[in-house]
Amino acid sequence: MALPPKKFINNPNDVVIEFIEGLVETYPGLQYLDGLPEVKVILRSDVSAANYDKVAVISGGGSGHEPAQAGFVGEGMLTAAICGDVFASPPVDSILAAIRAVTGPKGCLLVVTNYTGDRLNFGLAAEEAKTEGFKVETVIVGDDCALPPPRGIAGRRGLAGTILVHKVAGAAAAAGLSLAEVAVEAKHASEVVGTMGVALSVCALPGQATSDRLGPEKMELGLGVHGEPGAAVVDIQPVDVVVSHVLQQILSPETNYVPITRGNSVVLMVNGLGGTPPMELMIAAGKAVPKLQLEFGLAVDRVYTGSFMSSLDMAGFSISIMKADQSILQRLDAPTKAPSWPVGTEGSRPPAKIPVPLAPFQSTKNKESLSRPQELSPQGRLLEAAIETAATVVINLKDSLNEWDGKVGDGDCGSTMCRGATAILEDMRNYYPLNDAAETVSEIGSSIRRVMGGTSGIIYSLLCKAAYAELKANGQTEISPKRWSEALKSSVLAIGKYGGASAGYRTMLDALIPASKVLEEKLNAGEDSISAFVQSAEAATTGAESTIQMQAQAGRSSYVSAENLASIPDPGAMAAAAWYSAAARAVKELSQGL
Amino acid sequence: MALPPKKFINNPNDVVIEFIEGLVETYPGLQYLDGLPEVKVILRSDVSAANYDKVAVISGGGSGHEPAQAGFVGEGMLTAAICGDVFASPPVDSILAAIRAVTGPKGCLLVVTNYTGDRLNFGLAAEEAKTEGFKVETVIVGDDCALPPPRGIAGRRGLAGTILVHKVAGAAAAAGLSLAEVAVEAKHASEVVGTMGVALSVCALPGQATSDRLGPEKMELGLGVHGEPGAAVVDIQPVDVVVSHVLQQILSPETNYVPITRGNSVVLMVNGLGGTPPMELMIAAGKAVPKLQLEFGLAVDRVYTGSFMSSLDMAGFSISIMKADQSILQRLDAPTKAPSWPVGTEGSRPPAKIPVPLAPFQSTKNKESLSRPQELSPQGRLLEAAIETAATVVINLKDSLNEWDGKVGDGDCGSTMCRGATAILEDMRNYYPLNDAAETVSEIGSSIRRVMGGTSGIIYSLLCKAAYAELKANGQTEISPKRWSEALKSSVLAIGKYGGASAGYRTMLDALIPASKVLEEKLNAGEDSISAFVQSAEAATTGAESTIQMQAQAGRSSYVSAENLASIPDPGAMAAAAWYSAAARAVKELSQGL
Repeated sequence: MALPPKKFINNPNDVVIEFIEGLVETYPGLQYLDGLPEVKVILRSDVSAANYDKVAVISGGGSGHEPAQAGFVGEGMLTAAICGDVFASPPVDSILAAIRAVTGPKGCLLVVTNYTGDRLNFGLAAEEAKTEGFKVETVIVGDDCALPPPRGIAGRRGLAGTILVHKVAGAAAAAGLSLAEVAVEAKHASEVVGTMGVALSVCALPGQATSDRLGPEKMELGLGVHGEPGAAVVDIQPVDVVVSHVLQQILSPETNYVPITRGNSVVLMVNGLGGTPPMELMIAAGKAVPKLQLEFGLAVDRVYTGSFMSSLDMAGFSISIMKADQSILQRLDAPTKAPSWPVGTEGSRPPAKIPVPLAPFQSTKNKESLSRPQELSPQGRLLEAAIETAATVVINLKDSLNEWDGKVGDGDCGSTMCRGATAILEDMRNYYPLNDAAETVSEIGSSIRRVMGGTSGIIYSLLCKAAYAELKANGQTEISPKRWSEALKSSVLAIGKYGGASAGYRTMLDALIPASKVLEEKLNAGEDSISAFVQSAEAATTGAESTIQMQAQAGRSSYVSAENLASIPDPGAMAAAAWYSAAARAVKELSQGL
Repeated sequence: MALPPKKFINNPNDVVIEFIEGLVETYPGLQYLDGLPEVKVILRSDVSAANYDKVAVISGGGSGHEPAQAGFVGEGMLTAAICGDVFASPPVDSILAAIRAVTGPKGCLLVVTNYTGDRLNFGLAAEEAKTEGFKVETVIVGDDCALPPPRGIAGRRGLAGTILVHKVAGAAAAAGLSLAEVAVEAKHASEVVGTMGVALSVCALPGQATSDRLGPEKMELGLGVHGEPGAAVVDIQPVDVVVSHVLQQILSPETNYVPITRGNSVVLMVNGLGGTPPMELMIAAGKAVPKLQLEFGLAVDRVYTGSFMSSLDMAGFSISIMKADQSILQRLDAPTKAPSWPVGTEGSRPPAKIPVPLAPFQSTKNKESLSRPQELSPQGRLLEAAIETAATVVINLKDSLNEWDGKVGDGDCGSTMCRGATAILEDMRNYYPLNDAAETVSEIGSSIRRVMGGTSGIIYSLLCKAAYAELKANGQTEISPKRWSEALKSSVLAIGKYGGASAGYRTMLDALIPASKVLEEKLNAGEDSISAFVQSAEAATTGAESTIQMQAQAGRSSYVSAENLASIPDPGAMAAAAWYSAAARAVKELSQGL
């Protein structure tokens, strides 16, 4: 036996009632009539028939099309919506209850989708309401453009274009117009909108086994919103092609369903059918607009993209095109409190793109303006020696790092570090401004960012960037040991903050955190700066070696079992300890030689 | 070879770019930086860094989570959003471009989801921007509550709770607060929100074959938004049970992820993951609210239901719970122009349901107050004879009608009509107020509506209702032949209007339209009313018989081929002609006998 479709529901018979309960919990502006399960009516919580001084606009129909129609109840749009069972017209008594609940002396307009059940149930309710003394007008919407012109009435279903009719009618009513005037505007709107749907899957009714008749390579054109078969099943196509086909059908001069011709203004609605994510709807909208402009010679004044009238969980969308004049645009742009009407769609359209801003002047220096100084200052020489020794050590450590990383990670730590170190050596010879320590650190970061990919590239860039900001802070190019210590501290903090690791996580911080702490302590204690630097390097090495005992908490090693990690140090920590110690050694040797 | 998933896309590599193009077509308040395809930045079209006098709030991350983050750009929420490729963090240079484009003297806050890539890329961009002179603060959101407390940093992913943090930060910035103040509010918000996701399917990456690891009977608990496996795969459950489990996980005192205890106020977000339709999200929301109230002792101050942070086309949802105080509610309720922030969710909550309105007095008469008159007026006797004869003819025609309908429809026309006619005869004897023709017609409609289901029941109810309204119009109980003619015309119009059929569609109207026309013409021509009625009945019969030649245009017969219809009249038309003719005959006979 086929299984029921996977859905987030309880009893399949309760889906509409439970939808209504969730809807009113979400939107305090909506209420429902206390007649569940028979009477399923959503209405504005700020309207009661006795005192309502506007024309009420009422719609409804089978459920399964959420947010339609209940989600469009709100000031400026629908006054009430009647929900039928899934894909079934609501009964006459429910429709009557809605009419009685919100219709004041100015009367009500029923906006009805063109299905026999809806026409008849709303029709009988309208006639009944008239005999009760209500003024009632009815507008029937059949915007479907998928099929050739019908000989009879069955052909043109009410689809997502109905939502645009709701908006026009609701705004006209909110503007205080009479029932006759509101009905004329709604009728006009219904006559200038066309819709066609496409789908990748068939919708599944709650609790009922449904097989997808389309299979993995087909799509369906011109379907309705009740899972009924479409006009054609074809091979799946790029959405570009699909959009072109749909627009041609809607705007076909043969069927002449919508009175739209070259030079007209239109509004576009791209409507998701329930299972289509926003990304795909936006892609369809982005393709439809230039096609309407360039291939059909139309101005596109408004675009509405989202899920407005769905078909349960169907993966598909429909496109609606409505001819737009100033009057219709005014109605579409009018404010509404209906929760599902798209916001931010109105108003004039500024240029869609603006230039990428350039970096501020101070960081737009190009490499050609940089150059290695003719003569190095004492600090410049120390810096050169430290960088040279540190980079060389890293290059020599390549194979060991790769070997360790092969056991606890993806085996490229040595190669990646070597690539960075090689670039640093080359760039230093070419253009590092070694007499300016801050700028030199910044250039090391640039070299790294250029050649080292992945997480380690970003982390070392971050290290340099944070150090640079600290070293640059007071603008002096001569850097005291204390400020080097501050720069290291700042780097460690930045890596911890953005990388999310801290001491004991089996990362490079297990070398750099002890190094930074010892350096700061020794300098604060008044020790000689060379000695402080060397002791700090010893702390880095000890820290790095201690990672042998640690379980990884960050990076790829965190997926490796404790046993496999047991005899291997973290290669990132070992690399950091190595270059840091090498720099300290170089500084010490050069200082003693000076 | 597995096929790529069915999606409405073009080149899978272009999905983010094409999404952006659709987004700015839809929302004129959004622009993008002209740096596609590398730089994918959406920003407010009314903000430029040079003159922006508020703190800029910036977020971003991998794409595939639409509408997040780009859909939350707008006054009162994000100032800019940086889109990465699908499920990939945006690169540093794109983030920098966004910062430069919108950050004024008050600085910017980066709201970053807790993924290593996002943390590092946003982190490096933040540090770079600082060196360029921008004030930058960063808040990292990790709201995931699915997994036990992590030893390290990997455990808590940034999920839909991030959207609530955006709203708080954006509203604080819009209120003119300083960068430090905005950062404090955002950080606080990030610390009081927890989220957990569930899914029925795995998401499919554009262009990449993906098998659904879950199969037809399983669901996944505690998954992330990148298709990564969840904490557990279990048998599919009613959504009631799912919601309970998720709430328990989020609010677990063991993990203590969110500082929420009995008596607190909270806000609830039910977030669709891309392939879940609005109906199911609302059902989940409707269940979550009473559970939070009754099982957890929490006040639910706001509910946000919709798709805010999706995972491509995944069928699933997440629940987020945020502790709410007055300050947070004020930020959440503050106006925003961000197009994807839910509208209509703020403000106090009136009662969710109101009583079903009663019918106005004139139609609330109950059957017991009706009674057959002690003595019939002359018109009452004519009416009784007409009804009696008409109903009897229909009852006698049952088998013929069923036989015809068996060939062109579903075979129950005779049975349905017979049921109506039998009820009419019985009710007439019991309580029809026969001296009041209008009310009697109305009661015929009630009898029909009580016992006749389906389309024919509604159509005959409609016929009676329209006739009643016409007959009732000037309040006199004595009805002239002319007014009977008007009533028939009104009935025919109502059936055509709401049923959608007209002459030649092979329906009952093919009997009633000629009948109505002839009756009106003959009366207008001054003919004797009995003669006019009889001639009109002949027209009805001729019309009904002419349906033998017609192709059906409405109702079930429209699905039957022309050959099968060729020798059969429309049973609905034949029934209408029969009762109409019988009534005319009865009136004629009784009148002549008088």
